[in-house]
Amino acid sequence: MTIRPIIPVILSGGSGSRLWPLSRHARPKQLLPLLGDNTMVQDTVLRLRGPRFLDPIFICNAAHGKIIAQQMKDIAQAVSAIIIEPMGRNTASCGVVASLQALQQQKDALVLLLPADHHIADEAAFEKAIIQAAIAADDGHIVTFGIEPTRAETGYGYIERGEALNSSAYKVKSFREKPNGKTAKTYVETGQFYWNAGIFLFSPHVMMAEMKRHAPDVLTHSQAAFDDLQKDGVFYNLDKICFGECPSISIDYAVMEKTQHAATVPADIGWSDIGSYDALHKARQNADRMSLTGDIILQDCENLFVQSDGPLVCAVGVKNLAITVSDGKVLVTELEASQNVKNITDRLKQDGRVDDL
Amino acid sequence: MTIRPIIPVILSGGSGSRLWPLSRHARPKQLLPLLGDNTMVQDTVLRLRGPRFLDPIFICNAAHGKIIAQQMKDIAQAVSAIIIEPMGRNTASCGVVASLQALQQQKDALVLLLPADHHIADEAAFEKAIIQAAIAADDGHIVTFGIEPTRAETGYGYIERGEALNSSAYKVKSFREKPNGKTAKTYVETGQFYWNAGIFLFSPHVMMAEMKRHAPDVLTHSQAAFDDLQKDGVFYNLDKICFGECPSISIDYAVMEKTQHAATVPADIGWSDIGSYDALHKARQNADRMSLTGDIILQDCENLFVQSDGPLVCAVGVKNLAITVSDGKVLVTELEASQNVKNITDRLKQDGRVDDL
Repeated sequence: MTIRPIIPVILSGGSGSRLWPLSRHARPKQLLPLLGDNTMVQDTVLRLRGPRFLDPIFICNAAHGKIIAQQMKDIAQAVSAIIIEPMGRNTASCGVVASLQALQQQKDALVLLLPADHHIADEAAFEKAIIQAAIAADDGHIVTFGIEPTRAETGYGYIERGEALNSSAYKVKSFREKPNGKTAKTYVETGQFYWNAGIFLFSPHVMMAEMKRHAPDVLTHSQAAFDDLQKDGVFYNLDKICFGECPSISIDYAVMEKTQHAATVPADIGWSDIGSYDALHKARQNADRMSLTGDIILQDCENLFVQSDGPLVCAVGVKNLAITVSDGKVLVTELEASQNVKNITDRLKQDGRVDDL
Repeated sequence: MTIRPIIPVILSGGSGSRLWPLSRHARPKQLLPLLGDNTMVQDTVLRLRGPRFLDPIFICNAAHGKIIAQQMKDIAQAVSAIIIEPMGRNTASCGVVASLQALQQQKDALVLLLPADHHIADEAAFEKAIIQAAIAADDGHIVTFGIEPTRAETGYGYIERGEALNSSAYKVKSFREKPNGKTAKTYVETGQFYWNAGIFLFSPHVMMAEMKRHAPDVLTHSQAAFDDLQKDGVFYNLDKICFGECPSISIDYAVMEKTQHAATVPADIGWSDIGSYDALHKARQNADRMSLTGDIILQDCENLFVQSDGPLVCAVGVKNLAITVSDGKVLVTELEASQNVKNITDRLKQDGRVDDL
């Protein structure tokens, strides 16, 4: 069967504060070469090259837009548009803006809406899942990719699958908030639950219709902001006043949890959101459980992530730590506690230390 | 009874490599304000002010001599002499040089030979021990201060006490090398053993006679180096050729283990050689077991030493660590393993990274 062309719409709104001080407000996680030579947004784009895909659209803020334009140039990647949000309004508005832009570019295209800062180790499996999702999307479903859970993670939302649509896609029975540990364990044991990775594939017509039904406010204001946008080369600046009036709400809350058309394609693709130093270490580590970047001397150490942008870093008799030296800031965190690095950036914010963020 | 005047002779030859990167070749531990506002050598001198004491003599290398002169000026401390060693020759030669200089200054003085980098919490008890030692020294003994052991430490030599000379001093029965853990435990349990802190009190006549008997080579070459010294204000430069021929041997090996005149005065004086980050942390920590100096943000941490000379240091979910940021170098060490920081400086030496030492 024929697969409709797919437009990647890449959301680059995250601040990656759990990876501070590597990830900074001015250059967050997705704009850094955390795994290999390419930045995460470059890798995200490079995974979606080929005859099936149209040139990508980006949605981000103005400062990051300029960096993305340069990073795309650096990998000789043509860009459809870099849509600039005057302020963050979560992901529901992105669903509208992505759909409108896609419809302008190519009427029959599907939209692949995905974050700029996820790692996918098995690219062949990802492409296969995209094709499966495209079939379901062509049938009028809004497809969310369901990541096969490898542990009872409490940091993600879960998708409960319902009846099978075909051999590779299911109706969504329910979306579940981030569970506690016990509930997460039950989810994993049943085999009916997937991690919600925030990757969606849909026809823009369907998305617009479901927005109209379930989130008319989001639709109205996002569309107004899009209709009044100012073009500046590849940069499309959404209208500030209209966009400011748009509710700040996720696409999950606004549409996915309400629509009758939600489907999921299970995807065993080596996915990670690299959401903490622990996750980055797991994606990077060598056979000795070490991830070492920079001028480093170790004595009697085990299972360490160490990264320095210059200063000599020495460690003695320690294990299960991430040690990061970046731009004159030093972080030492227990790997398992590394989700809580966010508390540090929250403190910096409270204390008005914007230059350190 | 009358106590003979005492000349402090302060040995400032250590490199403090276990406290790297705080302690550096150019400015080692004894020249740093590790505890309070004064440097360790300043505190060492300030403990020995008063009518009993003559102005101190220092023995050190040329670069450190200049810093010591300045640090003494900063606390308005007069100095007898700063004797400059052209190269390190361990402590036996210091015993000779100290004795010769003391004899030139005041014939009837006793010499208090002590390291520049020890911490003594109970200064009143220290002064009392000095008086007790002076009485034994006046009787012709070379007195070594025996620190009451508070744990089965394997990092120090031990002194075994023999028969009592009076109510406060004992003959030394034996000196013991650094023991293993089991032996150290036995030592502590018997109550007959003390830590050898390398603090000595003696009459220079006795020291010279015992050097002549037990270490004539040390005596000959040290005396020749002293006889040919070049004075430059307060700096007394030992002759390089003569001093270079002197055997490099400790005063313990050369004299104390052989002489019949060794005595010990037990001293419960809150002594620490601040020989590791663990020891520094114990001397510094607040009631919450934290020693924090600099721009620091902590989240869910316990029992930490953190010191930064500028960069913001953040820690999350860690405990029992020392984290030091100094002069563009970063060290993270388990407190209990902090003796092994020396392996790091050994590695730097091997790799020819002299600027980092």
